[in-house]
Amino acid sequence: MKGTSRRPVAIETLLAEHGRLVEDALDRYLPSSDTPPQAVHQAMRHSVFAGGKRLRPILVIAAAGVVGAAPATVLPSACATELIHTYSLIHDDLPAMDNSPTRRGRPTCHVLYGEAMAVLAGDALHALAFELLVRNAEVPGCQPARVLRAIGEVTHGIGTAGMVGGQVLDLLAVGGPLDEAAVRQMHRLKTGSLIRACLRVGAILGDAEPATLEALDRYGEHVGLAFQIIDDILDVVGEQAKLGKETGSDATLAKVTFPSVFGVDRSRVIAADATRQAVEALVSLGGAADRLRDLAEFLLHRER
Amino acid sequence: MKGTSRRPVAIETLLAEHGRLVEDALDRYLPSSDTPPQAVHQAMRHSVFAGGKRLRPILVIAAAGVVGAAPATVLPSACATELIHTYSLIHDDLPAMDNSPTRRGRPTCHVLYGEAMAVLAGDALHALAFELLVRNAEVPGCQPARVLRAIGEVTHGIGTAGMVGGQVLDLLAVGGPLDEAAVRQMHRLKTGSLIRACLRVGAILGDAEPATLEALDRYGEHVGLAFQIIDDILDVVGEQAKLGKETGSDATLAKVTFPSVFGVDRSRVIAADATRQAVEALVSLGGAADRLRDLAEFLLHRER
Repeated sequence: MKGTSRRPVAIETLLAEHGRLVEDALDRYLPSSDTPPQAVHQAMRHSVFAGGKRLRPILVIAAAGVVGAAPATVLPSACATELIHTYSLIHDDLPAMDNSPTRRGRPTCHVLYGEAMAVLAGDALHALAFELLVRNAEVPGCQPARVLRAIGEVTHGIGTAGMVGGQVLDLLAVGGPLDEAAVRQMHRLKTGSLIRACLRVGAILGDAEPATLEALDRYGEHVGLAFQIIDDILDVVGEQAKLGKETGSDATLAKVTFPSVFGVDRSRVIAADATRQAVEALVSLGGAADRLRDLAEFLLHRER
Repeated sequence: MKGTSRRPVAIETLLAEHGRLVEDALDRYLPSSDTPPQAVHQAMRHSVFAGGKRLRPILVIAAAGVVGAAPATVLPSACATELIHTYSLIHDDLPAMDNSPTRRGRPTCHVLYGEAMAVLAGDALHALAFELLVRNAEVPGCQPARVLRAIGEVTHGIGTAGMVGGQVLDLLAVGGPLDEAAVRQMHRLKTGSLIRACLRVGAILGDAEPATLEALDRYGEHVGLAFQIIDDILDVVGEQAKLGKETGSDATLAKVTFPSVFGVDRSRVIAADATRQAVEALVSLGGAADRLRDLAEFLLHRER
């Protein structure tokens, strides 16, 4: 029965192992809470160490792994993507945006440190992310041109053609009627762009062939969509204790999500379909992409 | 009498010429107001084209000029520094921060586009700045390693050890008593760090020798302080019509500025002293640094 149980064990072990790597690295890279100006460093650390799944850094590491690059060779860039994700959550939670008092069961940054400090903590994480991307060039054998390309991928993924663009569409769409194409487009930008950038960054730093980069990019596109849909479903149906954040907060805001537009059942079908497409995108990569296949399945079936 | 009139004419011509270069480049680099999502691009353009002096890009260009590099070779990075400056102003003006309804006589970003959009417009400019820094590598002959070093200078200048750190000190200091050393430190970080980074970026992209880089860095430190002090003085004594922003707004907020702590007269002395030190820092550079000397004097005596 080894064949049937290998994958679930492997992916959970992998997630725990790489998650720990990322956790330790983030702790090293972030200024300590004792370093002046303390208040902003405390606010940054509060939000970075708030129990996130570290999906984005894990995707960077996994993409590099497909082309044989060790986690240590992409760790600064992997952590950079988590800092960008965290900055976007801090700003998203602000009273002027989603006005979220809690996230994953803990008070949000602006509730604890004030709105002004939350804006600045987000800005500081945004800047620190680029500092880490640059530091990836200190890894022995890492060519500056590759690091520059990786930074270019990140900037493209998080600007108005990517993450921020998706946040704008989200902002403008609250309460309004959207069709499936518009909801897909919003999520493609808001969550998908950074996730795709993570796969591209890992691949580029690992010196992947263009065809491999292309396959990983397509994987990222589909897995990013599936991830976001499951997130939205968990927001609706998740038990508060399991998820650790206020469930149903999207509905309170009348935000446009997959379940709010298509219902939970149809959303699950779309997520499963996206996961299938993600796995199919990897077909040319053979066994080297097994972990990414497992990860896609794991993300589809997760309960938090 | 040519000798006495050469410098004032030269620097104003230079400022106009380089200012126009920067203005045109910013217009090319920023997504058009018609490009979706339009709202955020309009908000970004509103704040970028709000009549700024373009000091930071001009300093990048001037530093590169000291080592013989043409403006075109550093233009993307020069514009990046202006986008960073603009993002910081947008966030600084937010209700949770300085709560400024106008800047340079025009409504601020959040007044026109709403707080949420202003947060996102700032974030988008922040990301676009790094996109432009990366694009500097497309300049023929520009080595990737130099571009990476330049990006590193920017990230260092704008994080919690630089600009954001200064904003935090500013935030925490409102209304509180500060001595001269604390006021200097706050301004050194809040305005000085990015200005120093501008000079370092121009020097690094122009392939300056370490001693030249060091001299330009010291110049930036002193000229940045003088610039900030004059800005604060103009805020107090400037006529509203001339300056085009609500004068005295710092006093309303009980913000810690040089004139509020030392009075206008003593502040002018400190600014003149800083300008002298800025000029002295350039002594080893000879005639190549004439424009930077003129610029320091011009900034000291400006009336807006």
